[in-house]
Parts: sequence; structure tokens; C-alpha cells
Amino acid sequence: MPLPEPAPVEAVLRHVDAHLDASRGRLFDLLRIPSISAQEAHRDDCARAAAWVRDRLTELGFRTEIRPTPGHPVVVAHHDGPADYKGPHILFYGHYDVQPPDPLDLWTSPPFDPQLVDGPRGPRFVARGAVDDKGQMTMFLEALRAWKDAGGGIPARITAVIEGEEEVGSRNLEPFLKANKAELKSDIAVISDTNMWDVDTPALTTSLRGLTYVQLTVKAAKRDLHSGLYGGSALNPINALTRVLGDLHDPDGRIQLPGFYDGVRPVSNARRAQWDSLGFSEQAFLGDIGLSVPSGERGFSALERLWARPTADINGIWGGYQGQGAKTVIAAEAHAKITFRLVPGQDPDAVFGAFKQFVADRLPAGATAEFEGGHGSPGVEVNADSPWVRAAQAALTEEYGKQAILMGTGGSIPVVVSLKNVLGIDTLLMGFGLDDDQIHSPNEKFEQRCFHHGIRSHVRLLAKFAAA
Amino acid sequence: MPLPEPAPVEAVLRHVDAHLDASRGRLFDLLRIPSISAQEAHRDDCARAAAWVRDRLTELGFRTEIRPTPGHPVVVAHHDGPADYKGPHILFYGHYDVQPPDPLDLWTSPPFDPQLVDGPRGPRFVARGAVDDKGQMTMFLEALRAWKDAGGGIPARITAVIEGEEEVGSRNLEPFLKANKAELKSDIAVISDTNMWDVDTPALTTSLRGLTYVQLTVKAAKRDLHSGLYGGSALNPINALTRVLGDLHDPDGRIQLPGFYDGVRPVSNARRAQWDSLGFSEQAFLGDIGLSVPSGERGFSALERLWARPTADINGIWGGYQGQGAKTVIAAEAHAKITFRLVPGQDPDAVFGAFKQFVADRLPAGATAEFEGGHGSPGVEVNADSPWVRAAQAALTEEYGKQAILMGTGGSIPVVVSLKNVLGIDTLLMGFGLDDDQIHSPNEKFEQRCFHHGIRSHVRLLAKFAAA
Repeated sequence: MPLPEPAPVEAVLRHVDAHLDASRGRLFDLLRIPSISAQEAHRDDCARAAAWVRDRLTELGFRTEIRPTPGHPVVVAHHDGPADYKGPHILFYGHYDVQPPDPLDLWTSPPFDPQLVDGPRGPRFVARGAVDDKGQMTMFLEALRAWKDAGGGIPARITAVIEGEEEVGSRNLEPFLKANKAELKSDIAVISDTNMWDVDTPALTTSLRGLTYVQLTVKAAKRDLHSGLYGGSALNPINALTRVLGDLHDPDGRIQLPGFYDGVRPVSNARRAQWDSLGFSEQAFLGDIGLSVPSGERGFSALERLWARPTADINGIWGGYQGQGAKTVIAAEAHAKITFRLVPGQDPDAVFGAFKQFVADRLPAGATAEFEGGHGSPGVEVNADSPWVRAAQAALTEEYGKQAILMGTGGSIPVVVSLKNVLGIDTLLMGFGLDDDQIHSPNEKFEQRCFHHGIRSHVRLLAKFAAA
Repeated sequence: MPLPEPAPVEAVLRHVDAHLDASRGRLFDLLRIPSISAQEAHRDDCARAAAWVRDRLTELGFRTEIRPTPGHPVVVAHHDGPADYKGPHILFYGHYDVQPPDPLDLWTSPPFDPQLVDGPRGPRFVARGAVDDKGQMTMFLEALRAWKDAGGGIPARITAVIEGEEEVGSRNLEPFLKANKAELKSDIAVISDTNMWDVDTPALTTSLRGLTYVQLTVKAAKRDLHSGLYGGSALNPINALTRVLGDLHDPDGRIQLPGFYDGVRPVSNARRAQWDSLGFSEQAFLGDIGLSVPSGERGFSALERLWARPTADINGIWGGYQGQGAKTVIAAEAHAKITFRLVPGQDPDAVFGAFKQFVADRLPAGATAEFEGGHGSPGVEVNADSPWVRAAQAALTEEYGKQAILMGTGGSIPVVVSLKNVLGIDTLLMGFGLDDDQIHSPNEKFEQRCFHHGIRSHVRLLAKFAAA
């Protein structure tokens, strides 16, 4: 049997263009599944989303399986690619789970009823998961479908690992990778879960922050109390919680956990110069979200604060009476959820320990503290000087007619750490989100233009790998 | 027509004893009405509770009316008493509204399905409002019923004012008193909404704290943000709120609002000596609620901190994600409800102004603060050297066979201030609650023994007034 001809990239790209509506339709089917990994009530929906991903990969000719974990399942799929394939074995990672959609009343349409609406940059998709990560993940699947339908078949050796716990810390993924290390052995990971520099400028992300996530409960009396009859004698756990957490930062915005900055390295002059050259306007960045004054650590540039400095943000707080009107109560307990974003050199476990110490040092006598979570992942720097990064830069530059840049992100993708630790491979972070996509917020959206370019960029990337 | 004979107190008391089950049954009927004044959804229930009170007073021969206010209505009722009545015209005040019952999951029975259960001190009533104030208010109505049924009629000239907004600050009551000043003119107010010293020791309350109630909202970005992508640049309003409120107290427990202690008078030596003689055990007081270490202002005795020193308690706090699991969000806004308990000499309006200044002084640039509430009432000291206080002390001492004491309370009954300001009358605070009644908390209860003695004590008090 003769070997197949080299892949006809232009024909595959034309096929992508001609079938964009069908690609979007498939994405919308997935967006209709409310696969909220954080909420037990959506366990079956997570299973349905996993099955949906499995079915699409099966259609593409992959050998597929849904593998259980102690949490939500992982979809694993393999395709050997062409018989004479000489390029890298690609591990494609994505996640089918999404963040909770609340506050629901701020959505302009139901979060799991995806809408195609006109925006200033053309059509966009509005739904929870539109970009993070269902929209970005399916771009790769659509690129493969175009190769299969118009390019003679799947052009590369590919293993897909699509998990369902990214939004809750991916706690079962690393054990899963360890348990299946031989099966998942590959050369380079590809993930689409990051942003472009702007809508016209493609980017690869080569540095990510890590995180430590903690839930703190402060307890005092064994029941709620009347603030008149007990105020002045009984400890108020909300007062105590605000006193502790109000001390997280010093007046310069530095985080006051003991040893928190141990191991944090300054940004190199070269890296700072590259970032400065990007001409980032923090004023415009904040203006888009209705803010005018930057927050954060004094003495660092905006991109350093966003990409290379750790943070402490209280993600949620609650206790006592939150209803209409007044209730003069001293609550029995108070709660907060806190995320520390970490940079390379910080140990997530040590940060959890330091937070416990920080709380213990400040908690008034008579109050008790309970901690949940504490899981996390360190910050990552991807080796920018690799043939795969160069191949991806070339694919993006061809697609956009503009140089693809190397950037950082303040977000965390813990799997990048796990892939390096367990499988020993680097990750290519080629993403098509935009800063205003409102991920994790009401009215999350994905520009159709980004979705379209994203599929085409993956078509090109696969061609480059196949030609390697 | 011959004048009626002097009231046969013993016969009336025997009637109370013989009909206690019926008295409790009527109270339970009222407790079944969820008249939560803070919640708009319960507006009709408040109206039903007002009608219930009106109907009972009508049965007793009062001329009754339900009078509208901008909020919940006031029940007003008059009875002239015996034709030859020479005693004081009594203004009886109570409130038919109750606090919200949440957290609902901590109730052992539904809050509006009153239960008669056995406790260490005999039977008790468990329901929202069991003691505050439905249980206490109906004691007076039951005493009148016993006088009517077994004592020849209502023994005194009485005006009843039963309002429906005590739990939300009684904001419409003072205007109502002003608008109806001539009609409500009387000599002494009687209120049962306070506690005994302990289950065996009756008390009159002669000092009360006031309060200023505020709701604070801190706003930052116009939408929720991803804490990875924005953390380090975007202001976090929960961080800001904890920083501001965490600074409410200094390390000695003193409240840091500017000018907060202006006008606060030290407790007199005589008063302190009387309080010291009560042998109050803060350890036991706190032990009952699961605490071991006192909180509050350093350098004052427990009773001074509870009765004669102002406090600042956060009654509720909320913002961001409060659900199961993790959501790494920077919220758009954060909220808190705060009560300042005040003592005589402090101006509630000035305290509200000082709180606004305190927040403005600490709020980071880029955040905005919004305030709701701010209404309040000053602390009160009742003249303890009056014939009515002496009459009430005598009635209580006869009922319990034990000297009734004069005490303070940390709670607030704003109407006492209004009655003094508008009608120029003092108030007799004769209450039968206990410290462990869990008012404003789940499983609020009222001891049947206290209810019973309370009815009997009012029977005796009415006899003393009639004989005056």
C-alpha cells in the first residue's frame, strides 16, 4: 500500500471554514451539559460531559475509554496517526468541567443555554464554559475532524486526556497520570486553556502561577447569640475573621504569612525587558472592568504583579445574617475561601502551613480555626527554547500574519506541573481566550473569530508536527 | 350602682393556675404566625399577628383599632378600668413581630410550630418568638383575662400599644407616638421584654443599651473576576472589607471610630458596688454557650462590659463564592451588617457618622462604600426611685418570696426612649426571660414556669396599681 501524500493543509483549512457552523453546533451541545465539578448535584452531568467527549473521539477513530477516579472520570483516547509518522507523540489535555455559574441573576441568558450573539468583534458564544475550557478544548477536536474529513486522516500520533476536575484543583489527575504512566508516555503536551495577547495577536504562554486554595472556618460559641445580651463578653467569630484576614497584606500590599516570599526569584532583566516591550496598559486593562486604580504589591510593574508575583485573594466570605433587614446576632461561626497565587520557587504545601501559622498567631483566645483544602500546585516556567515552541510560534504567525509572542499568565493550570513531574514532558500552551471573556464570571463568552482561528491554528500545528 | 369591691387577688391567681393550659394554647396560636418583620414575604403574616392581638384585646373589652404605619401596623387599645379607678393610667407596650429564624437547619423543630417539651426546669415552649416578645407580651393579656374572668373586670385604666417593627428598629413607632400623643397620654409604661436575674430571682431592668445599625457594601470592579488573571492588579472588595472591619477594635478591645467614646460616662461607684454584689459569674455565663474566655474591652468587669460599655459586632458578612468546593473569583462587591451597642451619653446619629468616616479613612483607592440603615436609639437609664418601681418590686417579691433586684441589660428597647421623649413617661421593665432562652437564635424557648409566674406577677402588679 503506498504511503499517504503529505497533508494538504490548505484543503483542510478550507474545510474548517466551510463547516464552522457545524463545529459551533457541536460545541453548543457540550455547553448545554452543566458539568459543574464543584457541586455534588452535578455529578451525573459531569459523567454526561465525559461521555460526550468520549463519543466525539470515538467518531474520530480514537480508541477511547472513560476511566473512573475517586472524583469525576477522565476520558483517555489514543490514535497512532499515519503508519509512517515520525513527529512527536502529542498528549492533548483539556477539561470538560466548568465553574459554578453563580451569581445567576447577573447572566443575560441562562448559563447552560448557549447563545450566539453579535458583539463588537462579530459573533460570540455566551455560556458557562464557552471558552474555559469547552470552547478551547473542542478547537483541537474540530481540527482533527477536519483532518479526518478533508486531509486524509488523523495526521499525528495523539493521546488525549480530558479530565473533569480542573476547576476544583485536579486533585485526582496526578495520581491518575502516575498509575497510567507507561500508557501516557508521549513527547509534548498541548493545551488550549490560556489567552491570546489581544484579539489580533496570538501568543504562547510560557509562565503560569500556581496556587494554594484554603477554606477557613472560625468558630466561637456553640450557637448564635443576641448581640445585645452577649456583646461585650462573647467572642464574635466574624469580628475575629475580619481581624485575621484584614491583616493578610501590609500597607505596601505585601503578604504577611511567615516565610511567604521564601524562594521567590526576581524577574530577570531580559524577561522584564520583553514584557515592557509589550506596551501593556494597566489603565485600559482595569478600565474594561470598571476600575481605575491598580491594586497589589507596591514596587512592581503591572505584568510583574500579574505574572510573576504571588497574591492572596479572598474568593468568598460568609457568616451570620445575610438576609433583608436587620438581625442583631452574634454568629456561632464564620467562613472564608482564600486563594494564594504562587510563582516558581514557592511550595504550595509550605504556604498552606504558613497560613495556618498566620491564623494561629492572630486568632483571639477562645476561637478555634478549622481548615479545608490546602491543595495546590506550584508556579511553572515552560522552556521557551524548544522545537515545539518554535513550531507553534510558526503556525500561529502564519495563521495571523503577525508574530506570536511569548507571555505569562496569572492563572494556574496544575496539570502542567503534573505532566512535567510524572511524564517528564513540557507543555505547549496555545490558547485563544481574551482578557474580556469573563471566565469564572457571569456571561462568560468566546469570540467565534477566536474559535475559528483556533481550529485553523491547530490544523497548522498538526501539519508542522507531522512534517517534523 | 355600687362600687366594686377591692380586687380579690388570690382568687385571680387561682384562676391563672387553673387555666394555664388555655393560656399556653392561646400563645401557641400566636406563635404559629410567622410574623417576621424584616422580610417582605411575611408582610401578610405581620398583619395576621396584629389582627390576632386586636381580637384578644377586643375579647377583654378593650376599644381596639389596627392603625397603619409606613411599615407594619400598630394595635392600639383602650380600657378605662373601674369607674372609681384612682391609680396610674398604664401604657402597656409589646411587639408582635419576631426575628428571622435562620439558620433553619439548627432548629430541632420548625420555628413556627411551637412545641411543649420537657427541660431541666420543667416544661418549656420552643418556637421563634416564644419569649421575645410573644410569650412575654401575652402574659399581660392573660393577667387581664384572669382579672376579667375571676376578679370582676379589668382592674386598671390601660392603653395598649402593640407594634410590629421592634425587631427592625421600631422606625415608625416614634412618629406614631407623636401623631397620637394626646390619645396615648398616660402615667407609666409597662413592658415585658427583658430577663430575670435567674430562674428563681425576679428583676426589674433599669438600664438598657441603645444601638446604631449599619449595612456596609464595598464595591470594586463592575463584574466578578478570575483571581488568577486579575489578582495582583484588580482590587478585591472582600480583602478591602476585612481590612476595614478588622480594624474596628484595637488590641485592648476599644472601638476605633473617631470620637466613639465621647459622652460615655463611667459607672458610679454605688452602681458598680450593687452590680458586684450580684455575684455574676462570667465563666458560667460563657460556659453555657460553649465559650471559656471573655471577649470585649480590657479593664472593665463583665457586667460593665455587658451593661455599661458600648460594643461593635458584625452581625453578618457575605461576598463572593459561598458554595461547595472552590471558585477562584474576585467578587465585584462585599457586604456586612454591623451593630454598635450604645450607652447613655452616646448619640446614635453621631456614631453612624463616625462609622462612615472610619470606613472612608481606611478604604483603598478605587473601592466605593455604600451605607444603609444608620438608624438607632440611645442608651437609657430608668429612674429607679419611683413609686411604680417600688410597686413592681413589691409585686415580684411577693410572687417569688425573694427580693427583686434592679439590673441592667445589654440589649436595646428603643421604645423606652421614645416613650420618654414623646409622652414624657418612664417605663417599668418587668421581664421573665432567662439568659439561656436563645432569643434571636435557633430553638428559642420560654420556660413555662416563667410564663406562669409572669402572668401571676402581672396580676399582682395590677392589684398594686389599682390600690395606689
